[in-house]
Amino acid sequence: MAHVIVREIDRAPAAVIDALADAGVATAHEAAGRVGLTGPRIRARVEGARIAGSAVTVSCPPGDNLMIHAAVEVCQPGDVLVVAVTSDSTDGMFGDLFAVSLRSRGVLGLVIDAGVRDIATLREMGFPVWSRAIHAQGTVKASPGSVNVPVVVAGQAVNPGDIVVADDDGVLVLPIARGAEVAEAAARRLAAEEEKRAALASGTLGLDLYGMRPLLERLGVEYRDRA
Amino acid sequence: MAHVIVREIDRAPAAVIDALADAGVATAHEAAGRVGLTGPRIRARVEGARIAGSAVTVSCPPGDNLMIHAAVEVCQPGDVLVVAVTSDSTDGMFGDLFAVSLRSRGVLGLVIDAGVRDIATLREMGFPVWSRAIHAQGTVKASPGSVNVPVVVAGQAVNPGDIVVADDDGVLVLPIARGAEVAEAAARRLAAEEEKRAALASGTLGLDLYGMRPLLERLGVEYRDRA
Amino acid sequence: MAHVIVREIDRAPAAVIDALADAGVATAHEAAGRVGLTGPRIRARVEGARIAGSAVTVSCPPGDNLMIHAAVEVCQPGDVLVVAVTSDSTDGMFGDLFAVSLRSRGVLGLVIDAGVRDIATLREMGFPVWSRAIHAQGTVKASPGSVNVPVVVAGQAVNPGDIVVADDDGVLVLPIARGAEVAEAAARRLAAEEEKRAALASGTLGLDLYGMRPLLERLGVEYRDRA
Amino acid sequence: MAHVIVREIDRAPAAVIDALADAGVATAHEAAGRVGLTGPRIRARVEGARIAGSAVTVSCPPGDNLMIHAAVEVCQPGDVLVVAVTSDSTDGMFGDLFAVSLRSRGVLGLVIDAGVRDIATLREMGFPVWSRAIHAQGTVKASPGSVNVPVVVAGQAVNPGDIVVADDDGVLVLPIARGAEVAEAAARRLAAEEEKRAALASGTLGLDLYGMRPLLERLGVEYRDRA
Amino acid sequence: MAHVIVREIDRAPAAVIDALADAGVATAHEAAGRVGLTGPRIRARVEGARIAGSAVTVSCPPGDNLMIHAAVEVCQPGDVLVVAVTSDSTDGMFGDLFAVSLRSRGVLGLVIDAGVRDIATLREMGFPVWSRAIHAQGTVKASPGSVNVPVVVAGQAVNPGDIVVADDDGVLVLPIARGAEVAEAAARRLAAEEEKRAALASGTLGLDLYGMRPLLERLGVEYRDRA
Amino acid sequence: MAHVIVREIDRAPAAVIDALADAGVATAHEAAGRVGLTGPRIRARVEGARIAGSAVTVSCPPGDNLMIHAAVEVCQPGDVLVVAVTSDSTDGMFGDLFAVSLRSRGVLGLVIDAGVRDIATLREMGFPVWSRAIHAQGTVKASPGSVNVPVVVAGQAVNPGDIVVADDDGVLVLPIARGAEVAEAAARRLAAEEEKRAALASGTLGLDLYGMRPLLERLGVEYRDRA
Repeated sequence: MAHVIVREIDRAPAAVIDALADAGVATAHEAAGRVGLTGPRIRARVEGARIAGSAVTVSCPPGDNLMIHAAVEVCQPGDVLVVAVTSDSTDGMFGDLFAVSLRSRGVLGLVIDAGVRDIATLREMGFPVWSRAIHAQGTVKASPGSVNVPVVVAGQAVNPGDIVVADDDGVLVLPIARGAEVAEAAARRLAAEEEKRAALASGTLGLDLYGMRPLLERLGVEYRDRA
Repeated sequence: MAHVIVREIDRAPAAVIDALADAGVATAHEAAGRVGLTGPRIRARVEGARIAGSAVTVSCPPGDNLMIHAAVEVCQPGDVLVVAVTSDSTDGMFGDLFAVSLRSRGVLGLVIDAGVRDIATLREMGFPVWSRAIHAQGTVKASPGSVNVPVVVAGQAVNPGDIVVADDDGVLVLPIARGAEVAEAAARRLAAEEEKRAALASGTLGLDLYGMRPLLERLGVEYRDRA
Repeated sequence: MAHVIVREIDRAPAAVIDALADAGVATAHEAAGRVGLTGPRIRARVEGARIAGSAVTVSCPPGDNLMIHAAVEVCQPGDVLVVAVTSDSTDGMFGDLFAVSLRSRGVLGLVIDAGVRDIATLREMGFPVWSRAIHAQGTVKASPGSVNVPVVVAGQAVNPGDIVVADDDGVLVLPIARGAEVAEAAARRLAAEEEKRAALASGTLGLDLYGMRPLLERLGVEYRDRA
Repeated sequence: MAHVIVREIDRAPAAVIDALADAGVATAHEAAGRVGLTGPRIRARVEGARIAGSAVTVSCPPGDNLMIHAAVEVCQPGDVLVVAVTSDSTDGMFGDLFAVSLRSRGVLGLVIDAGVRDIATLREMGFPVWSRAIHAQGTVKASPGSVNVPVVVAGQAVNPGDIVVADDDGVLVLPIARGAEVAEAAARRLAAEEEKRAALASGTLGLDLYGMRPLLERLGVEYRDRA
Repeated sequence: MAHVIVREIDRAPAAVIDALADAGVATAHEAAGRVGLTGPRIRARVEGARIAGSAVTVSCPPGDNLMIHAAVEVCQPGDVLVVAVTSDSTDGMFGDLFAVSLRSRGVLGLVIDAGVRDIATLREMGFPVWSRAIHAQGTVKASPGSVNVPVVVAGQAVNPGDIVVADDDGVLVLPIARGAEVAEAAARRLAAEEEKRAALASGTLGLDLYGMRPLLERLGVEYRDRA
Repeated sequence: MAHVIVREIDRAPAAVIDALADAGVATAHEAAGRVGLTGPRIRARVEGARIAGSAVTVSCPPGDNLMIHAAVEVCQPGDVLVVAVTSDSTDGMFGDLFAVSLRSRGVLGLVIDAGVRDIATLREMGFPVWSRAIHAQGTVKASPGSVNVPVVVAGQAVNPGDIVVADDDGVLVLPIARGAEVAEAAARRLAAEEEKRAALASGTLGLDLYGMRPLLERLGVEYRDRA
């Protein structure tokens, strides 16, 4: 099993990525047909951010962040670093110095299926991270891994160059090939949501707005005045 | 097993509910004899809120929010929507459009034993939610469930119309019949706490304030100057 | 198994403790040789604080906070209360009245391998707590335990008088005997980090800054232009 | 909140209970409309048993088994002891001496949302237990609780006298009032399953046996010869 | 996002698969360079089995086993059914009737990132299952999914036709392309292990057998006679 | 932080150890005053064993079993190997070859706060292991650790030479100094248990045998004939 660092990856067009950032995770996820989310153990640790970019993927052994160093070099502006570990770990593999280094290269944020530390500084810097844990536990730089190979992060497969959308609702991963189609569907959903929002705010029921009363009847759900 | 939507439920008097909101979860829980809490997996996701209201309960299959739509219609001002799932799930069954709809009906907040999404918008709106997870994972509207039937939420049984008190400490559920008694006991506790707070702030020890030294002695706890 | 309350403990010099507070958890942990952290289940519940002090330890049965009351009396200014339970519990053993009492004695904060409550008030007071859970669940004052005995908190052994450093990254525990050495090493690391930060901010790669390219080669990690 | 021990409870007819024991948990759960299961954290700890009986319920504080002692006295032959705790616990509240005592009264087994111990002896005795954990952690006998009140066990509400069916698949709880209907439906399912088993064993596909091909088509699932 | 059922997949040669079954999970995993394992939440529920076969993959919504029915039809003798769910679930999606049906088609076993039921019958039948849970919770047959598409199971990506090796140590997944190479390396390891076993049994230390003393010295590990 | 291997440790007398093995974990734990248990995540993976011996402790980095090799050399007949990791891990650090090696030195079993593999062979060999997980995940031999230093295993501090008692109920750890006293108390408990067992088997209630009726009354627990 060779360990490799792949220098060049394909990336989605900026316009597509930007449109997905505008949509946000929940809307883009719906537009994509409800696929592509990392599991809920990956959470926003710097609240209020919303980013979209191209995945530079890293596969590390647990407790070893050597390959994150190697990955920085192949990052480009607009990328999102996505770090997987080869077995379960909550160690704090990423801290503020990494964030300084990534920011100097235009990287937008970090998604990591392990821990981060220096979280107070990351919050001050406004460098967004989505992680499984916050933990100061330090790591070594001793064992090989890979950069820009397929990985799995919290149950979601990620390929190098995949579009990553992340906000307070979680992290969405989309293949480049689906980007344009999903971005358009997401834009349509956003427009439709505005109308729905207005209707619901004025008291219209979702039952009527979405025409679900016949479904309830077909399913045999019975109305009663009293228990 | 019929699926039903019960339109009318009994509710506790507003004065009782308001008094419990004033007391907050921890104090009302003590006043109730230390019963009625949902487990700690249900957490405040919009921090700083404190509400009390009448439970409109919903039982949904995992990954399906059809019945939340049905529940909106039977909600009244001052209600709290309480959503259970029939097997473990962290899917994001509730988002900002539901919040808009519920707010238009005067509903105070949401307690859900599953996930929520659009959390950034919910925070902006100040619509408080207590949930098991934040997750963008979308759901279908396909399977039947029930509204205003007894449910269990994070280990706590909830009946329709039960008084729900929720704040950053968690969620408390009380039967209507116990509301007045608990509200009074809570008010007494609040008054007593003020006195205790002053005594403790001035350096009086809890050991003395609560007269616990004899208990320590009776239990055989031994004082030593040095280990 | 006698239950004891030990009144007097050794404490590290204030200068050492202050230097460790300046360093923070992540840096002091590295300086200590990457030992001494509590597990990630103990999290900062009042964000943004950073403290260091001397551990007054408490061993309680689950669901019983009697011994916390006993511990308050032996606390001195600059101490940190460290509470362990004899079997797993998330009960809210600690609330705002305890915080008032501890603050009146100059105690800096609380580390507890169980739950806390009145969290909104603790945040308002700025009294920092690191805990396993936030839960309103009340406790009794009925069973004996000990104060200032060795305990284990989230996988970390803590002796009375140990230096406790805590911030948003977690909780670090150091024996008094190692304090000065670690404080000095931490200070050196802080200085070195400033230089590294500047280099990384200007675009220097960690790979070069830390001289890791030969290691990657030795480990057989292979560069490829394309996958 | 009074603590009570209720001596007499209603029980379902033996014939109904026996029929449900014959059906087993999975079949009876389907017959009941897929309701009534405790969550998967409650597992069979003495494998290979299958029982059905009437629930004698116990509510204990965590780490305290006093009320289990009180409950033994109100048990009758054919009962199943069902123990809940008022907050999360894995303590070993039940051991072989309890099993000896319960067996002498004809109790069929134990369901407990906490831990058991002396598990090797329980296995030797063939006294079946369904529990959340196996843990030797001992408990006190110090605090009050209740017997034969409504409780919640691993997410499932249990009322005194409810029919409890338990086997290696888990634990099912049914109200007395539903017993006969569910027992009959379960018997019908058992018969139908025999036919299905034969058909499936001979190579008939479930798709055809259950007529699901039109559903797949209606749902838009597309067949392809190759990826 | 189309839902598809792919009828034909490539499979590894039987000789390769058989060699991997002989090696078992731990040895084949080492031979593969320590990649390819599902996480430890997937456990053997019918102990003592060891199988290897070709993956027929299934992607199901949580709580819905319709697509498992569809998958049976495309299975061939020697296959292993591998079931993923689109969000976390422990529902009992698979029971003994499925096992009868799969066995009639020569399927060797099941790997499922959810629950199974009828476990006592599965054990009697000797039909091996590796699952996340044992839970009787029934499921519907209502929503679409896919068969023979890439899935992720407990953190491990699985492609249709991948070689699956499973025993009491867990589940290993290998691409067809790596099968022969790994099978050979595994056979070499098995032979070498026999020699090592004999040496170790006769008292030779691993430190000497593997020549690790110089490494300990290089790492600065210090021997002391006494603490 | 020096890494050390301590060659010589004190051990408790064989007679004391044997007496504790006879008592078993639950009884010895009670006799010890209900202290000393590892948490319930450490479980017997080879059922039916009961051992007691002297702890040889190992501290390993996660995913690295080098120090287990180093520890074998300092083990003596009657020892129990106790392995801790410096951060959370379920990797399979221990397999059948280690068991062969340890058995050749007379070591009785393994307690490990991580994973084991080759479990089928360990069961065949009858080499008992208590572990956090069964997982085939392989580990490296690259980083330093220590042997015979104080460690924490699943929440329990263990010192080199401590008496370890382990059976299907879990793992108990006692200081040498308490061994004789606890062994005697355990023997007394065993004798008393026989009498209690006979009484309970003949129908005497625990309430009467332990004289708990006055306690129930004092606690205000109220008997009612009907709910």
